[in-house]
Amino acid sequence: MAIPYPHFIASEKAAMEAGLLSPSSSQPSLILTQDDLKKIAAYKAVEYVESGMVLGLGTGSTAKHAVARIGELIQQGKLKNIIGIPTSKMTHEQALSVGIPLSDLDSYPVVDLAIDGADEVDPYLNLVKGRGGSLLREKMVEGACKKFVVIVDESKLVNHIGGSGLAVPVEVIQFCWKFTASKLQNLFEESGCEAKLRTFGEKKEPFVTDNKNYIIDLYFKKSIGDLKVASDAILNLAGVVEHGMFLDMATTVIIAGELGLTVKNK
Amino acid sequence: MAIPYPHFIASEKAAMEAGLLSPSSSQPSLILTQDDLKKIAAYKAVEYVESGMVLGLGTGSTAKHAVARIGELIQQGKLKNIIGIPTSKMTHEQALSVGIPLSDLDSYPVVDLAIDGADEVDPYLNLVKGRGGSLLREKMVEGACKKFVVIVDESKLVNHIGGSGLAVPVEVIQFCWKFTASKLQNLFEESGCEAKLRTFGEKKEPFVTDNKNYIIDLYFKKSIGDLKVASDAILNLAGVVEHGMFLDMATTVIIAGELGLTVKNK
Repeated sequence: MAIPYPHFIASEKAAMEAGLLSPSSSQPSLILTQDDLKKIAAYKAVEYVESGMVLGLGTGSTAKHAVARIGELIQQGKLKNIIGIPTSKMTHEQALSVGIPLSDLDSYPVVDLAIDGADEVDPYLNLVKGRGGSLLREKMVEGACKKFVVIVDESKLVNHIGGSGLAVPVEVIQFCWKFTASKLQNLFEESGCEAKLRTFGEKKEPFVTDNKNYIIDLYFKKSIGDLKVASDAILNLAGVVEHGMFLDMATTVIIAGELGLTVKNK
Repeated sequence: MAIPYPHFIASEKAAMEAGLLSPSSSQPSLILTQDDLKKIAAYKAVEYVESGMVLGLGTGSTAKHAVARIGELIQQGKLKNIIGIPTSKMTHEQALSVGIPLSDLDSYPVVDLAIDGADEVDPYLNLVKGRGGSLLREKMVEGACKKFVVIVDESKLVNHIGGSGLAVPVEVIQFCWKFTASKLQNLFEESGCEAKLRTFGEKKEPFVTDNKNYIIDLYFKKSIGDLKVASDAILNLAGVVEHGMFLDMATTVIIAGELGLTVKNK
C-alpha cells in the first residue's frame, strides 16, 4: 500500500529535500512529473546511506538523482568516507563532478549498498535493467552488494518480466550478432519473441556498450515462463555476454507514485 | 583400441597422404613427432568432408593441418562448392591463403561439419578448448554444426576435465577482471582452483582475444565434479563471456597415437 506523502514522515522528508514539498505545506505543491517521482524515490533511497560505506552507483535517469544527492551530502559534511563504485562511464563522470571519491570492484570486491533504477519490477522484486545500455557493469557491481535498493516510479511495475511490452536487453559480442539474435528469438518462439539490434541516431548505427558489445532487445508478446530457466538458456548461447534480467538481486524496492512512496523489502 | 597404421586402410591412407608413410612401406618410415600425429589425425578428419558442405574451420596447431588439406583438395578439384566458416582471424587468413571460399554464421547459420583440435578430451568426449585463445568463436561455430569432428594426438586424453593440470580458459570482459578472477577461483575452492590472467611476451601484457576480452586460465588440483553445474555457475558470473569447456558437443574424436589412429563416436 502506498504511503501518502503528507502523512509519512520519511517520504515527506524525502519529498521536501527533493524540493518538491515546502515545510509549511501539508499537500504536494504541484502535480508531480515522472522526473519528480524519480527524484523522490532517489532521495528516499539515499537515507539508507551511512558514512564509511562502499556504494554502488547506478546509471540512468533515476539513479542520477541519487548520485547528485550523495554528492550534496558529502559536500555538506553529512556523509564521510564514502567510496563510490560507478556502474558506467557516464556515472563515473557524474560522480566525479559532484565530488564522490571513486574506486572499483578490483579494489573493493564487497559493496555495502547499491542504489539504481530499473526498467521493470515484478511482484517478486525481479527486475529488467539495461535499457540505458549498462546492464553488464550494473550486474557485476550490484551482484557484489550486501544491500541493493532499487528506485522506480510506479510506471515500472509489471505483472511479469517483459510485461511492459518494452525491451529485455541482452548484451552480445559483435561477431555474428545476427546469428545470436536469431538464436535468441528461436529460444522464446512460444512467447512471441522478437529480437532487434539496438541502434541509435538517424543512421541507425548499432549501439555499442562500454564493453564494446552490441545489445539485442527482446520483445515478448506473452510471459516467458520460469525466469531461472530462461536466464540459463540465454547465458548458454555462446555469443551472449549477459542479459538484463536481475533475478533475486534487489533487497528493497522504493516506488514513487502520485499518491506516495511504497517500500517493498525482500 | 588403437588401429595400427600399417594394418588399417583408412588411417594408412591418411598417414600416406600426410606424407608420413610411403606407399611401398609397410611400417612407418620414421619415429612420429607430435606434429606428425596431429597431421595424421587432421588428414583422417578431412575424409569426412564432402563437396557442397558448409565447414567450420578450427584454430590451432592441429586444425591448421586440416585447413591446409581442405585447400589442397579444392585446388586439386576433388572438393567443390565448399564454404568455410573460420573460428578466428588467424584461421580466416590461412583459409584465404589456401583458396577456401569463406563466409560467416550470419549468412550460413547451419554448418554441416566442423573440424577442430582440442586441449583435453575426457572419456565422454567432453572437451577443453581455447588455450589458443579462440574459444568463443569456436563455440559459436561448433555449436551450430550437425557434425563436429575433433582431432587430437593422444597426449590430449584425460580422465576428467582439468586433469592435465593445464588451463581451463574462461573469456572475461576487461572491466574489473581481477574481481571476476577472484569470483572464479572462489567458485572452485574445493577443487583447489587457481585463477590466472593470461599474459604474453616479456612484458607480461594481458592477452586480448579477437573479441577484445581477457582470458582467465583456471588450474585445478582435483576434479571439478558435475561439469554442467560448473558450466552454469561460471556463465552466471556477470563478468564472464564464455568458458572453454565444450560439453556434449563433439560427435567424433580422432586420436592419433604412436601405435595408430583411434576413432571414437558419440
